[in-house]
Amino acid sequence: MSTIKDVARLANVSVATVSRVMNNSPKASATSRALVQQAMTELGYTPNANARALVSRTCDTMGVVVNDVADPFFGALIKGVSGVAVERGLHLLMGNGFHNAEQERGAIELLIGKRCEALVVHSKVLSDEVLIDYAMRVPGMVLINRDIPALKGRCISLNNRLGAATATRHLLELGHSRIGFLGSDHAIEDASSRLQGYRDALSDAGVVADAELVECGTPNEEGGERAMLNLLAKGLTVTALVAYNDAMAAGAISVLADNGLKVPEEVSVVGFDDIIYARYLRPKLSTMRYPIELMAAQAAKLALQLAAGEGEAQQSRIYTPTLINRHSVAPLRS
Amino acid sequence: MSTIKDVARLANVSVATVSRVMNNSPKASATSRALVQQAMTELGYTPNANARALVSRTCDTMGVVVNDVADPFFGALIKGVSGVAVERGLHLLMGNGFHNAEQERGAIELLIGKRCEALVVHSKVLSDEVLIDYAMRVPGMVLINRDIPALKGRCISLNNRLGAATATRHLLELGHSRIGFLGSDHAIEDASSRLQGYRDALSDAGVVADAELVECGTPNEEGGERAMLNLLAKGLTVTALVAYNDAMAAGAISVLADNGLKVPEEVSVVGFDDIIYARYLRPKLSTMRYPIELMAAQAAKLALQLAAGEGEAQQSRIYTPTLINRHSVAPLRS
Repeated sequence: MSTIKDVARLANVSVATVSRVMNNSPKASATSRALVQQAMTELGYTPNANARALVSRTCDTMGVVVNDVADPFFGALIKGVSGVAVERGLHLLMGNGFHNAEQERGAIELLIGKRCEALVVHSKVLSDEVLIDYAMRVPGMVLINRDIPALKGRCISLNNRLGAATATRHLLELGHSRIGFLGSDHAIEDASSRLQGYRDALSDAGVVADAELVECGTPNEEGGERAMLNLLAKGLTVTALVAYNDAMAAGAISVLADNGLKVPEEVSVVGFDDIIYARYLRPKLSTMRYPIELMAAQAAKLALQLAAGEGEAQQSRIYTPTLINRHSVAPLRS
Repeated sequence: MSTIKDVARLANVSVATVSRVMNNSPKASATSRALVQQAMTELGYTPNANARALVSRTCDTMGVVVNDVADPFFGALIKGVSGVAVERGLHLLMGNGFHNAEQERGAIELLIGKRCEALVVHSKVLSDEVLIDYAMRVPGMVLINRDIPALKGRCISLNNRLGAATATRHLLELGHSRIGFLGSDHAIEDASSRLQGYRDALSDAGVVADAELVECGTPNEEGGERAMLNLLAKGLTVTALVAYNDAMAAGAISVLADNGLKVPEEVSVVGFDDIIYARYLRPKLSTMRYPIELMAAQAAKLALQLAAGEGEAQQSRIYTPTLINRHSVAPLRS
């Protein structure tokens, strides 16, 4: 790959001159501009963004940290940030945290090191303290799906507890009381908040929560299959299910169908997230919408605003999940 | 954010000394090392990866260019590359091309500029010439899902034509002859290759291809719904369908079910790709497996090998799609 030195040699000017041309310095003469441009073209030379970032001290790249890009939920998150980046002519630098503290740290450090002054971070395993420390160092860092009081104005999250409560209430209103919960075994806030929301709705309705009806697993399709198999194995009466997310709901519905249990006639199922394929499941999945693409775009705009020193909002943005009523829920059969 | 100057000032040493410590130069004394390390810690200073890359002329970041990360297919591609990156302790820089020449160029240029010496590129809209030019400048660039003769040894692709032929033959062998094709309207090679494969199988079986049975749309769920609705509107006899990809198959199955047409009893459907949710559709989708995660990991390893100057393979790697026989296909009812 040719370097700035090669360009200077071919253009027969100093490296300093090439640098001045690259950075559109007024000191560069029209002649040297022409010579340098021509040399760059002949050599197929690409200005080194690393050097450019050092010179301009700004970044043409936004950063985003997610858990796992192969998960459709995070694909939608990245799409939201990416839309804003494209709109502003910025590129996107992505890091995967894989629900692992070391890797979340590594990804955030890399993006900071690459001088991504606007950063959208989805971190669930790092402590508030660690994230507050990063936020102090990077004014343009915004947290998504997390609400840290000390960082109000820089957090965009969803009311997970309310969402699970709404899903459960929907089933209660249709006469169900033997309602199971397929939970996530990830030790993160979302998992406990959604379980708590399920319990809130039950107690509000005066229904005694039966711990036997709660099964946890990895929050993906396979995890949903396993949790559902375990629940069926107990041979308990269950007429409805609230799933931690749509992926687990998909796995559960697959197991129910394979075992001859009709959804929704015999078992009603409500998911969470409304990922891309929720409405292509049979029956079409009723679920709690997590407007993650919208929230991610909002987070990206906020990060750019903060990075530009335009000051932050006065409080955290907490979004509300809404019920999308499709075909996987039916009234309790008397 | 604190700079190398702040560190030098606090450590009471020269910037050159800080730089020597940062780059583990033997010239740096133990004393200055200690002073600089302490100052860095006090200031919470993060070494600037841009500067580091310039100094070392190497890159701690692999690059990958895809069309759209929110598409589960590309999520799986990135996961394959990401697995290798994590394994080697490298980070991942991602660019979205959005099936747009300008944005594909922009993404590739950014990654080259950021000195990603190992680069996995999924580009369908840029010409062979443009990609060959980039490949000449970046020895560690590998193309995935593309086969350019001039770049043999740096291309990893799938035999799309054979895949669609295999899917069609599977239906022919079960007695179907009125076989529709739900194609992609993207003007890329994959679209024409898969359509051609469908035609190959028909003509091999002596079945006259009926152009009326081919409907094209955007290669996603909505596109599959629209193409299916158009095909039904023609009121033709169709007992089986080959879809361009699983997303279109999901949309088609949804429309068929909404219209009371049973899959597979009345209409058999074969998809393509085997994306994550294919086996959670009802019926579980029979499809042609596109081992994209495996291929992407292979591409990442090859890119690193080439970037390290270890020489390239002697020919292109062309993978074969295999039939995954689930429940969306049945023999023709007599």
